[in-house]
Amino acid sequence: MAPAPGDREARREDVSQAVWQVLADKGFGGLTLRAVATAMGASTGLLMHYFPTKRALVAHALDLLEKRTAARPRREPPAAGLAALRAALLDILPLAPGDVARNRIWVSSWDLALADDDLGADQGARYERLRSSLLRHLETARDLGELPPAADPGRLAATVVAFTHGLVVQALFDPARFPEDVQTSLLDDFLASIAEPLPARGP
Amino acid sequence: MAPAPGDREARREDVSQAVWQVLADKGFGGLTLRAVATAMGASTGLLMHYFPTKRALVAHALDLLEKRTAARPRREPPAAGLAALRAALLDILPLAPGDVARNRIWVSSWDLALADDDLGADQGARYERLRSSLLRHLETARDLGELPPAADPGRLAATVVAFTHGLVVQALFDPARFPEDVQTSLLDDFLASIAEPLPARGP
Repeated sequence: MAPAPGDREARREDVSQAVWQVLADKGFGGLTLRAVATAMGASTGLLMHYFPTKRALVAHALDLLEKRTAARPRREPPAAGLAALRAALLDILPLAPGDVARNRIWVSSWDLALADDDLGADQGARYERLRSSLLRHLETARDLGELPPAADPGRLAATVVAFTHGLVVQALFDPARFPEDVQTSLLDDFLASIAEPLPARGP
Repeated sequence: MAPAPGDREARREDVSQAVWQVLADKGFGGLTLRAVATAMGASTGLLMHYFPTKRALVAHALDLLEKRTAARPRREPPAAGLAALRAALLDILPLAPGDVARNRIWVSSWDLALADDDLGADQGARYERLRSSLLRHLETARDLGELPPAADPGRLAATVVAFTHGLVVQALFDPARFPEDVQTSLLDDFLASIAEPLPARGP
């Protein structure tokens, strides 16, 4: 007897959860049908029903990463300008365990994306979208007088993304050295350095 | 007849060159005996003589990456302080083709390192060494009065590494948007933001 539609949906969710677990533990380099089957206590044969090829499994994993990133809980966007920028960047950093898993999987995906022209172009476009979404906050910040008048929001967007993703990578490899409060205060210092004239050298 | 020692050495160099080529094209995810054999026009059997296991091949690749990074040509270190810091960061960025390959391979290695506790600890220690080497320049910069008196060189070292590696990743995925002059000027703007009091807002 074929499973009821509700069962099929539940099983599909189990499969996605197992794929996520394998990615968080082993990255794309460790993503195999066998590893997913083990993670969900199922047979490799069952998994082949969902993923007839390795390529199909990888495509599902990338799609899952995209969807879970888009659907992740986010901070209420406060006001606008630099405060909104700060909230958007805190939503990226690996502060809580779920954020750590998501970031680990993203960093892991870069190996795949660097080796494949199409995936590399997708990742390049994803960076462009991220810079554009932050640009909005930087332009507002400039209009609000939160940035020096000579600041270039377009260039700053690339700098802000660079700082944030470089902090992600360091924090993933050394969580003890970069707990939540350290990441947050490094971000605040960085935002202060692009925003405010520093105090004059004294005394 | 066994090959002469000189031949063996030359062959070993060929193998390393082929491993490097595979890593630059396909990353650690694409590093297989077969791919290395194809890159050097040799048989998989010959390669198994050098690398009896996949683990041995990966260990050789990581060792090669470490050695080629240490041996890469560097800029003459100019003076000290922020000028020396700038030179050290330019030596990291993917400005010339050889730098691009090296950075691609490093970013690719993170997938592996995130999935393996020992390799992850190695990468964490590598970051600690990088921050320490830059800290020296930041402390000198502070002593020379190039940084605001309240600046914390230890925290700044993490920020500088974050900015630099985040720029590396963006540039790898979008080289047309981040050619050498753009990377360099973003670095210069970033260094100016940590160094100098910005001009007062006005008028």
